[in-house]
Amino acid sequence: MSVTTREVLASHPGPHDDVDLDVLARCVEALVRCAQACTTCADACLSEPDPGSLADCIRTDLDCADVCSTTSRVLSRGHGPAAGAVRSLVEACLEACRACAAECDRHADHHEHCRLCAQACGACADACLELAAALD
Amino acid sequence: MSVTTREVLASHPGPHDDVDLDVLARCVEALVRCAQACTTCADACLSEPDPGSLADCIRTDLDCADVCSTTSRVLSRGHGPAAGAVRSLVEACLEACRACAAECDRHADHHEHCRLCAQACGACADACLELAAALD
Amino acid sequence: MSVTTREVLASHPGPHDDVDLDVLARCVEALVRCAQACTTCADACLSEPDPGSLADCIRTDLDCADVCSTTSRVLSRGHGPAAGAVRSLVEACLEACRACAAECDRHADHHEHCRLCAQACGACADACLELAAALD
Amino acid sequence: MSVTTREVLASHPGPHDDVDLDVLARCVEALVRCAQACTTCADACLSEPDPGSLADCIRTDLDCADVCSTTSRVLSRGHGPAAGAVRSLVEACLEACRACAAECDRHADHHEHCRLCAQACGACADACLELAAALD
Repeated sequence: MSVTTREVLASHPGPHDDVDLDVLARCVEALVRCAQACTTCADACLSEPDPGSLADCIRTDLDCADVCSTTSRVLSRGHGPAAGAVRSLVEACLEACRACAAECDRHADHHEHCRLCAQACGACADACLELAAALD
Repeated sequence: MSVTTREVLASHPGPHDDVDLDVLARCVEALVRCAQACTTCADACLSEPDPGSLADCIRTDLDCADVCSTTSRVLSRGHGPAAGAVRSLVEACLEACRACAAECDRHADHHEHCRLCAQACGACADACLELAAALD
Repeated sequence: MSVTTREVLASHPGPHDDVDLDVLARCVEALVRCAQACTTCADACLSEPDPGSLADCIRTDLDCADVCSTTSRVLSRGHGPAAGAVRSLVEACLEACRACAAECDRHADHHEHCRLCAQACGACADACLELAAALD
Repeated sequence: MSVTTREVLASHPGPHDDVDLDVLARCVEALVRCAQACTTCADACLSEPDPGSLADCIRTDLDCADVCSTTSRVLSRGHGPAAGAVRSLVEACLEACRACAAECDRHADHHEHCRLCAQACGACADACLELAAALD
């Protein structure tokens, strides 16, 4: 049996006490899933017949993967004094996910990887929004 | 419904043709799970009464999180000309996971986060080993 | 002779046309320097006699390293459609740098690594601020 | 005055005692420089008239950036129990740099960013080789 994100977060003795653990775990999972989908989508775009037409898609994919990956790490730690910085990061991540969802959505009819990536980015944006509300 | 790693990898038009997709997806999932467990374990160690006694555990956690995260990204792309470099990275990752599993295992009786992290690292080492064999 | 960040950015055929290249290069350099200083400072804190008293410092170091590293990558790419997300990320990074500078500054009299890290974080905050103004 | 990598590494109270600090600092600097050059080169390739012909270059750039970035973090920490894993990572990084240097070199006559990136990768491979020898 695999270890779940929620179990791991719940094993932390200290922080997270002010955030609902289910909301946090859902967000961390959505972030790592989104980062993975974006990384593969960027590479898959390079294998399509005309990658030049997908250059902006590849860029937003790579940006989104980086921001989601970092946000998942920061949220996997306890915050505390830097809570304001964490909230700003979640908001920046929300924007990156929305930008990438919008860009991938434009190619979703032609490329299955863009369709799946837009779906992962949309789910991640929702999870960031839910967490941002919980952090207030 | 969440997008799965296997679906995302299968949507790639190009590469991965020489690696079993189930083996690859299992490894990518084990890597992101391990990276997350290590990141939280390192932070949880800092919240324990005597973090100084866990300094080596925190270090191997952080190293393992970085190596697993990078390996999951590289494996989410198509390889090709750099296949040799990919195999070496998987092997370096296997060593990082084993070192971290061994270190966390020493504290597994006292700290639930170390127990879970050792389990995630062990599962990731197994997945890397399985993939390394498939890459030969 | 080493390749400089400015040379590399200037070799890009496309983007960055709306941002002063000196400002951008300064910011990217400050970011990678800050990420490196934070990574070493976190580890150095673990080697001090009482790491428990430095737990918050280690956490803000690790968060700051992750955010700076990702921001340096995003800024090393051309933006375009996701320019709003880039600006939000730079602002989140500015907050992470300020939080870490403030935290490390509290320990600067006792630990040289904290003094250097506070300096690197402060310089990075300045560079982010300068870039944020240029992005407007 | 900017903080230097060597100063930061020298401020660490604990580890690195078994590695020449100049060799280590040179390697960490070469790694972050290489990661930055690869990230920009990948993006610059996307702005060229025919990115499809540069797909393998973009992939090796992205892989190399990830591996160098992670290796620079691991080397910025003290090792100890995981020294074997560190050496394997440096060797995997050396291979990634060589693969990327070779790939970028094929396009160096046509693209200044590939020429600079090949140079940064080559310098990084040299620095990894020097460090690998020092770790023995």
